[in-house]
Amino acid sequence: MPFPFPFLRRLASPSDDLGLGTRDGPSRGVNKDGSFNLRRTGAPRFRPYELFHQLITMSVPRFALVLLAGNLIANLVFAGLYLAVGMEHFDRTGGPALLDRFQDAFFFSAQTLTTVGNGSIHPVSALANGLAALESLLGLMGFALACGLLYGRFSRPDARIRFSRKALMAPYQDMTAFMFRIVNERSNQLIELEAHVSLSLRDPDTGSHVFTTLALERTRINLFPSNWTIVHPIDPASPLHGMTERDLSEADAEFIVLIKAFDDTFAQNVFARSSYKSDEIAWRMRFVPMVSPRDASGMAVVDLALLDEMESA
Amino acid sequence: MPFPFPFLRRLASPSDDLGLGTRDGPSRGVNKDGSFNLRRTGAPRFRPYELFHQLITMSVPRFALVLLAGNLIANLVFAGLYLAVGMEHFDRTGGPALLDRFQDAFFFSAQTLTTVGNGSIHPVSALANGLAALESLLGLMGFALACGLLYGRFSRPDARIRFSRKALMAPYQDMTAFMFRIVNERSNQLIELEAHVSLSLRDPDTGSHVFTTLALERTRINLFPSNWTIVHPIDPASPLHGMTERDLSEADAEFIVLIKAFDDTFAQNVFARSSYKSDEIAWRMRFVPMVSPRDASGMAVVDLALLDEMESA
Amino acid sequence: MPFPFPFLRRLASPSDDLGLGTRDGPSRGVNKDGSFNLRRTGAPRFRPYELFHQLITMSVPRFALVLLAGNLIANLVFAGLYLAVGMEHFDRTGGPALLDRFQDAFFFSAQTLTTVGNGSIHPVSALANGLAALESLLGLMGFALACGLLYGRFSRPDARIRFSRKALMAPYQDMTAFMFRIVNERSNQLIELEAHVSLSLRDPDTGSHVFTTLALERTRINLFPSNWTIVHPIDPASPLHGMTERDLSEADAEFIVLIKAFDDTFAQNVFARSSYKSDEIAWRMRFVPMVSPRDASGMAVVDLALLDEMESA
Amino acid sequence: MPFPFPFLRRLASPSDDLGLGTRDGPSRGVNKDGSFNLRRTGAPRFRPYELFHQLITMSVPRFALVLLAGNLIANLVFAGLYLAVGMEHFDRTGGPALLDRFQDAFFFSAQTLTTVGNGSIHPVSALANGLAALESLLGLMGFALACGLLYGRFSRPDARIRFSRKALMAPYQDMTAFMFRIVNERSNQLIELEAHVSLSLRDPDTGSHVFTTLALERTRINLFPSNWTIVHPIDPASPLHGMTERDLSEADAEFIVLIKAFDDTFAQNVFARSSYKSDEIAWRMRFVPMVSPRDASGMAVVDLALLDEMESA
Repeated sequence: MPFPFPFLRRLASPSDDLGLGTRDGPSRGVNKDGSFNLRRTGAPRFRPYELFHQLITMSVPRFALVLLAGNLIANLVFAGLYLAVGMEHFDRTGGPALLDRFQDAFFFSAQTLTTVGNGSIHPVSALANGLAALESLLGLMGFALACGLLYGRFSRPDARIRFSRKALMAPYQDMTAFMFRIVNERSNQLIELEAHVSLSLRDPDTGSHVFTTLALERTRINLFPSNWTIVHPIDPASPLHGMTERDLSEADAEFIVLIKAFDDTFAQNVFARSSYKSDEIAWRMRFVPMVSPRDASGMAVVDLALLDEMESA
Repeated sequence: MPFPFPFLRRLASPSDDLGLGTRDGPSRGVNKDGSFNLRRTGAPRFRPYELFHQLITMSVPRFALVLLAGNLIANLVFAGLYLAVGMEHFDRTGGPALLDRFQDAFFFSAQTLTTVGNGSIHPVSALANGLAALESLLGLMGFALACGLLYGRFSRPDARIRFSRKALMAPYQDMTAFMFRIVNERSNQLIELEAHVSLSLRDPDTGSHVFTTLALERTRINLFPSNWTIVHPIDPASPLHGMTERDLSEADAEFIVLIKAFDDTFAQNVFARSSYKSDEIAWRMRFVPMVSPRDASGMAVVDLALLDEMESA
Repeated sequence: MPFPFPFLRRLASPSDDLGLGTRDGPSRGVNKDGSFNLRRTGAPRFRPYELFHQLITMSVPRFALVLLAGNLIANLVFAGLYLAVGMEHFDRTGGPALLDRFQDAFFFSAQTLTTVGNGSIHPVSALANGLAALESLLGLMGFALACGLLYGRFSRPDARIRFSRKALMAPYQDMTAFMFRIVNERSNQLIELEAHVSLSLRDPDTGSHVFTTLALERTRINLFPSNWTIVHPIDPASPLHGMTERDLSEADAEFIVLIKAFDDTFAQNVFARSSYKSDEIAWRMRFVPMVSPRDASGMAVVDLALLDEMESA
Repeated sequence: MPFPFPFLRRLASPSDDLGLGTRDGPSRGVNKDGSFNLRRTGAPRFRPYELFHQLITMSVPRFALVLLAGNLIANLVFAGLYLAVGMEHFDRTGGPALLDRFQDAFFFSAQTLTTVGNGSIHPVSALANGLAALESLLGLMGFALACGLLYGRFSRPDARIRFSRKALMAPYQDMTAFMFRIVNERSNQLIELEAHVSLSLRDPDTGSHVFTTLALERTRINLFPSNWTIVHPIDPASPLHGMTERDLSEADAEFIVLIKAFDDTFAQNVFARSSYKSDEIAWRMRFVPMVSPRDASGMAVVDLALLDEMESA
C-alpha cells in the first residue's frame, strides 16, 4: 500500500505540537467543550496556592456550601471559646442549661462575626470583650475574602463562543475549503478575534500523531457583531489537499480550534477552544446565511438559531 | 455605461469583511455612536451569564431601581419569614396588630440585612436568632455583590473619543487625502492609539457591499495630548483614486473607523468606533488648527471646541 | 548662511508627530516629570464621566477632605430629615432643645450611615425606621464606593522610573552616542521594558518644529534588575550626525523619551515620560557604573544613588 | 593557548545584556528560584509608594501581624482619646478605677472600629459621639484597605511553573540540543507561553561576561496542558557549537530562562524565571516521557512527578 499522506514526512519535527503529546490512542485530544482529554497526576499533595483557583471555578451550589460551612465552623469555634470562657462573662437573659448557654454563645458569635451586633447579648468582662473584638476582626476579614470571591466569580470573563456543531467541506472560490463558523452567545462585544486551527493526523507508520497548523483565509477580525466563518482553503499547499472523507477517518483526523478575543465588558482577553473529528465534518454542504438583508428600517438581523443550518452545496 | 470602480474586482474575496455581512440595503453598517446597525435574534431564552453584563451596562437610574427593588424584596421575604415564625420570638415594644407586627418584622429585617443591628428589636429564640444570622449572612453577600457592581460600573473604562462631525477631502502634500480628526474628551491620558479605517462600497453588479482597508499615513501614535488627524492619502493605489463626490454617493460609501487606545487612568485598553457616510464628507475643505502657538509662558493651548471647525482649502 | 540641518528636508511629512503639534515657541513640549506643556480648553462644562478620574488622581489630603465632606453632608442631610420627621419618632434620652435634638439626629445618622448602630438612640415609628433603613442602604453604597476608590488609589500602578538628570554625548564603540540611563526606584520587578526616543528640532526656515524617531541600540529589555542605559549611536544615518553642541541649542532640540513596562506587582502596563533639552546634555562625559563587581558572597550591588554620576570621557 | 570561544568576539556589543551588568565574579546572575543575585542600595529613605508592594508581597504570618498590630494601635489611640475626653461621656456599667475605664474605652473602640456596635457602652455626649463617628469612619476605611489587600494578596496571579532540576545535552534529530522541560504545577490553564533563553559566558580575555540569546526550536506554544520541552538545537550557528562539558564549566556558563504566559484563571500575564549553571547540565541523557499513552477510556495521563526523570541517551 502506498503511503497516503506524503506531507506527514514534512511534519516529522514537532513544529506544531500543542502540548498534548504525540498520542497513541484513537480518541480526541480536545473535547467539544474545549477541555483536554488529559488527566494530571503526580502533583504535590499540599497545594495551598490552588485554593483561589478552586474557589473561583467551582460550581455555584458548591461555592454556597463552602461559604455556609465556613461560616458555621467559625461560629461553632467561637461559640466553643465563649462557653469555655464562661457565659457569666456576658450580659444575657438565657437560662443556665448547657443548651441555653450554647445558643446564647452561638448567636452572639453569629452577630459578632457579621458585625450586626444587635446588642441582645453583650460581653461584660475584658476577656469576653477581647474575644469578641478578635472575632469581629476575623469576621470582617473572612467576609472580605468571601465577598471578594463572590464578586470575582460573578465578574469573571467567560467567553460564550458557540461553534457550529459540524464543520464543512464546502466549495470556496474555485476550490474546496474546510470551514466552520462561530457566534457570540453573549450580547457583549468581542473585539480583535484571532483564530488558530491545528490538524492532527495519525502517521500510519509510527502510529503516533503529528500536528500541523492550517492556513486560514483570515486569522483575525476586528469586530464580531454577527458570525464569523473560519475558512481553510484546500489549495495545493494544504495538508488536506487530495484527502478524501475516508482518508481523514483513517488518519484519525482532529481539527483543534483556538479562539482568542478581547471582551469589551470585562476589558480582558478571553479564550475558547473546540475540536472537530472526521465524523463531525459534513461534506459537500454549505452554511445557510445567518444575517438577513436589511429591512425597511435599514437594520439587518442576525439569527443565532441558524448557526448549525446548512444546505447541499 | 463602463464599470466605474475597477478596484472592486480585486476585492472579490472577503478579505476585509468586518463581520457585518455583505449588506443589501442602502443604510449604514456602523452608526455614528459606534453601535452596529444589526439586531440579534435566536439566542437562548435563559441566559444567566448575561446578568453581569446587563447590570454593568444598564443606565444609572435603572441600576438604582434594581438595587432598591432587590433590597425591598429581600426585606419582604425575611419579614414574611419572621411573621411566620411569630413575633413573640422577638423582644419588641410594638403592638399586637398585624401592621405593628409587620413593621417590627420589616424593620428588624432591614437592620439585619444592612448589619446595622441597632438593637431596638432583637430575637430571643433560637429560631429567630438563626433566621437573623442567616439574613445577615445573605445581606453581607448581597451587599458585597451590589457594592462590587457599583464600583465596577464607576471604575469601568469608557473612552470618550470625539470624532469630527465631518470627514474631509482635503489637499495633502501634492495630492488629495481623506481625513478626519479626533480628540479625547476626558482629561486622562490615552496612550498608544491605533486607528483602522475600512471603506465599504456597493458593487453595482451584484448589489452587495465589499470592504477594503484604507492605508493610513500613520496607523499609530504614542501620545494623544491634543488632537489626531487621521489621514488616508489618495494615491494611485487607493480605492478612492479618481472617485468623485457623486461616485461615492452612488456606491453608498461608508467609512468605518476603529480606534484602540490604552487608558492610563484605568490601565486598560479602550475602543471607539464611528463611521462617515458620503454625505458626511466635506470636499475641498481643511481643518482649522486646534493647537494655538505657545504663549509667553511657553504653554500651548488645545481648544477642543474647534474640533469641527474647517475652512475652504 | 548654508542650511545646517539637511535631514530636516526628509522630515517634512509629519511622520513622527507626537500629537504635540508643530510648535512655534522656544519652550519644551514634555516637562521633566512627563507632563505635557499643553493646556486644554473648550471641553464641555458638565462632564460627570470625569469624576472617577479626578477622585483617583487627586492628592491624598484632598481625597481625605472629599471623603470627610461627603460624610458630613450626608449626615447633615439625614439629620435634617430626622428633625423634620420629629425626634419624637425616636427612643432617646436627650433634652427637648433644638441643639439636643439636632445632636441626637446627627449622631443617630452617623451611626446608621456607618452601620455601627450601637443602639443608644433608635427609631420607634415606621417613618423613622424607614428613613433609617434607607440611610443605612445609601451608607453602605457610599462607603462601598469610597472604599473602592481608596483601594483603587492605593493599588494603582505608578511607575517610579528615575531618569538620569543629564543625557550624555559619550564615546560609544568607534563613534559618539546620545545616551541617558534609568533605574526603577521601586523594589518591584519591571519586565519587558520598551524605550522610544523622539527628537524635535526647529526648522530655521519655517520656525516650526519637526519630529523624528531616534534609532536605539536596543529598544527593549526583558528584565530590569539594575539600570538601563538607553543609547542612540550617532552613525551617519542619525539626524544628529555632524551636529555640534551649538547646533542643538540653536535648533531648540528636545529629546522626548517614552518608557513602557510591565509591572509584576500590579500585573499591569506602566508608562513613564521625560525629556532632555540641549542644556541638559553633557558632552564628552560618560556614566560611572552603577553595578559593582560581585563581592565574596557572589552578590553584585547596584547603587541607585550613582544614577547621575558621570566622569570625563 | 588558542582562544577557545571565537563567537565571543561577535558578542562584544552588549546586544543581549539582561540588565545584570557584565559580571566579574564566578557566581550565578539568576538564582534557581528566579530572583536576581543583586542587591539594591542608595534608594531614598522615605518611600511611601513602596507600602502597597510590601504589603502585597510579604509573608502571610507577617501580613497577619501587621493587620493585628494596626488594629491594636488604632484601638489604643482611640481608647486614649476616649479616656482623655472622660468616660463620664459614656453610658457604661464599669467601675471608676483606671483599668475599668480603660477596658471600657478600649472595647468601645474595638466595637466601633469594626462597626459591630453592640451597644453595651454608648456615648452620651456630643463630644464622645463625634469621636465615635470619626472612629467608625476611619475604621471602615481602614478595614476597606485591609480587606482589599487581603483579597489582592489572595487573588494575585502566581505562576507555579516548575523547571526540570537538570538541563540536558541530548540527541536531537541528527545533532545535539540543549534542552530542559517545564510543567505547570497549578491546575489552572496557562495559555500562549513564550520562552526566552540567554546564555552568559565569561570572556577569558577580559574576565567579564557576555550574553547571547539562544535560538529555540520554538519560542511559543498556544496551550500547555502537559509539559513543554524547550529545545535549543546546537547547529553550527549556535554559540554552543563545538563546546565541551569542560569548556562550559571554564566559561562559567549560565543559561538564564524567562517564561511568559497568560493565566486563564486570573486573566493576567504571569512570568517565571530560572537558570542552569554548567554543573546542572546532564550530558548524553534524555528525558523520560511524562505523557503516557491513552488508556481504554481514551484519556492520556501526564505524571508531573516524572519531570526530572531521565535516562541515558
